Amino acid sequence: MALKKKPVTGMKDIMPAEMEIRDYCISVIKKTYAEFGFQGIETPCVENIENLTSKSGGDNEKLIFKILKRGEKLRLEEAREEADLVDGGLRYDLTVPLVRYFSNHENELAMPFKALQMGNVWRADRPQKGRYRQFMQCDIDIIGEPTNLAEIELILATTTTLGRLGFKGFQIRINERRILKAMAAYSGFPEERYDEVFIILDKMDKIGLDGVLRELKESGFDEASAASYCELFEGLEAAPDKLSFLEEKLEGVIDGAVIPDLRETIETVEATKQADFKVVFDPTIVRGMSYYTGTIFEIAMPELGISCGGGGRYDGMVGKFTGKDVPACGFSIGFERIILILLEQGFKVPGQGEKIAFLLEKNLPSDILREAIERAQKARLEGKSVLVVRMNKNKKFQKQQLTDQGYTQFEEFYARQIG
Amino acid sequence: MALKKKPVTGMKDIMPAEMEIRDYCISVIKKTYAEFGFQGIETPCVENIENLTSKSGGDNEKLIFKILKRGEKLRLEEAREEADLVDGGLRYDLTVPLVRYFSNHENELAMPFKALQMGNVWRADRPQKGRYRQFMQCDIDIIGEPTNLAEIELILATTTTLGRLGFKGFQIRINERRILKAMAAYSGFPEERYDEVFIILDKMDKIGLDGVLRELKESGFDEASAASYCELFEGLEAAPDKLSFLEEKLEGVIDGAVIPDLRETIETVEATKQADFKVVFDPTIVRGMSYYTGTIFEIAMPELGISCGGGGRYDGMVGKFTGKDVPACGFSIGFERIILILLEQGFKVPGQGEKIAFLLEKNLPSDILREAIERAQKARLEGKSVLVVRMNKNKKFQKQQLTDQGYTQFEEFYARQIG
Repeated sequence: MALKKKPVTGMKDIMPAEMEIRDYCISVIKKTYAEFGFQGIETPCVENIENLTSKSGGDNEKLIFKILKRGEKLRLEEAREEADLVDGGLRYDLTVPLVRYFSNHENELAMPFKALQMGNVWRADRPQKGRYRQFMQCDIDIIGEPTNLAEIELILATTTTLGRLGFKGFQIRINERRILKAMAAYSGFPEERYDEVFIILDKMDKIGLDGVLRELKESGFDEASAASYCELFEGLEAAPDKLSFLEEKLEGVIDGAVIPDLRETIETVEATKQADFKVVFDPTIVRGMSYYTGTIFEIAMPELGISCGGGGRYDGMVGKFTGKDVPACGFSIGFERIILILLEQGFKVPGQGEKIAFLLEKNLPSDILREAIERAQKARLEGKSVLVVRMNKNKKFQKQQLTDQGYTQFEEFYARQIG
Repeated sequence: MALKKKPVTGMKDIMPAEMEIRDYCISVIKKTYAEFGFQGIETPCVENIENLTSKSGGDNEKLIFKILKRGEKLRLEEAREEADLVDGGLRYDLTVPLVRYFSNHENELAMPFKALQMGNVWRADRPQKGRYRQFMQCDIDIIGEPTNLAEIELILATTTTLGRLGFKGFQIRINERRILKAMAAYSGFPEERYDEVFIILDKMDKIGLDGVLRELKESGFDEASAASYCELFEGLEAAPDKLSFLEEKLEGVIDGAVIPDLRETIETVEATKQADFKVVFDPTIVRGMSYYTGTIFEIAMPELGISCGGGGRYDGMVGKFTGKDVPACGFSIGFERIILILLEQGFKVPGQGEKIAFLLEKNLPSDILREAIERAQKARLEGKSVLVVRMNKNKKFQKQQLTDQGYTQFEEFYARQIG
């Protein structure tokens, strides 16, 4: 029977050259995060379908790969709808599984719980260039730390990692959901429509302030509110110190600790950072997921015009699932984007040992075969990579292929040894 | 909404202590296999359902987690059977995906293609202690090498890896499907019933030679054949050199190169090995999968009474799928068993740096917070791990917990610094 040669729609085979870069990045990430006290954990790729459809996943819940019930549980004749057929699904993020994991193991975990997760997630998005239906996520989360110590450590850990991977001149753009809300309140928008306001604000980088004003009006918001809101952003644009500007404007509308805390976060990170980047307060950052309750941040690579990750504080989420409020904050590196950038830049994995290829004539007598293997084993003991292969008829082409793979030395073994 | 706290049936959450050992083993495995010229690759966890149900997976095909069709493709009203509902499944091994990968990318790959795959597979087995429905497999395969150079390198790579992980005194038990068949032919069993004979032979270690003889008779095999077969094994038991004994007995029944090749494999590995193990010819090794065509081998840990991996030559399989015969041979480490053994032995990951915990009093002023973070960053630059956490009310208990996690140094930071 003939096999379908292609991977399933929207998923990809990873070739050796990319795999080498991925493995290198994974090792740098794991090592760096361990230095910040994060502990690796893993959850199954399959989650209970109830957990995946509990409204914490936003639009991702529409993109679930669902897993058919098995055995007696599957009753095809009685099934009326999709939900009757499935009891599991492939996870679409690592946050829902983390919250389940935490609630399952809370008593075994030291608090605060600093978790590192690297694992695949699946979303049945429309396939497009550079976006796949299976991709790796790389999340760090701190559960149980209510203060900005969580934000500071998350940002430092993530940026130190990016720095070690060779990234420079990037930005961490930071905002606060409570500032977003206070600005909306200050302008007199009705609370139940804040999310609509934020969806429009989120387009600022594409449509500009004029566009935001126009869309707010078109969406039926009060003209005075829309005008006041946009004036705030104009004022911010001109202000030499944006946070002080907002502190004054929003006095009485916002908890007095929010802005000083955010300022402390930014200043502490700036003073202690170990990579070439800037932390920038950006009042237009919104972040889609509705579960964020405090700080929100994004990694911006300005040269590339893309975001390479983000995160924020989601203090309410654990409590929603477990009934007990526990503060939480997380930061996710856009692993696949990082890999894509490194591949496009022709990144070479550093510190690789010598690569030697032994070419063995066909039908070598046992003693010469043994000698070749012995010498290969000896070189490996010295940390070298040795590929032992049969010599092809077209030896020149074979050596060229091996050179392309990074082999720099060749030895040949013949029935009567001349190599 | 309350979350289901437990992982789905038969799958497990991995705790930090196990994760540390897993990460360490993965890094040793990848490093060692790279030294042998194996290249890492990855395929999606989801495969086309046709590929998973093509009869190459043996009994595993009954254990597939199937994935529901999506959107318009799913026609619940018209569905008559399971197959109408699904178009994908979670892979149950890494061999079928490897063959698909090879056939998809053959033109981009240097030959022989030496692949390393580490990845999860899923089987809906009945859950039991130590056996999970999601588990990691670790396979190396050489595609395109017809001679025993493949076997020699696979066994050396695998055993060198096990040695570096601290395993000693184990065995590689090796056999040949063509010897198995020749022995059955010698005894006069009908060729179409060889597999039945081998299933009975496979029980030798449990039921002994008498049991094998009895079961052969009970299964309706010719008494003379059964007796001749068991005499062969008796003769083998007594023979000082088992391969020479078989070479004589099976003359004319077996391709004359098979036994000398196997002998060369064993002797070359013995002469060049870099770990404490023995290669043992074991004519009772069968290996379940029907796709094996030549050498078959298993890792036996005699002290533990279990097998920790295995593999063999499957020259026919690639051709069955692609229409073009390509020789192939693979070796799989039982990754989860290795981890279980290391966990039970209280394995400590070697070469870990110092672990320091900074305890910060609540409500530290910004300058002292900054100083603490600065010092943490400095220590991290020196390769140390530094956990920065808020001081709990019960500081003694907190330190005890941290000590259990491996932290050996503590520093305390107070609003008026005394630490």
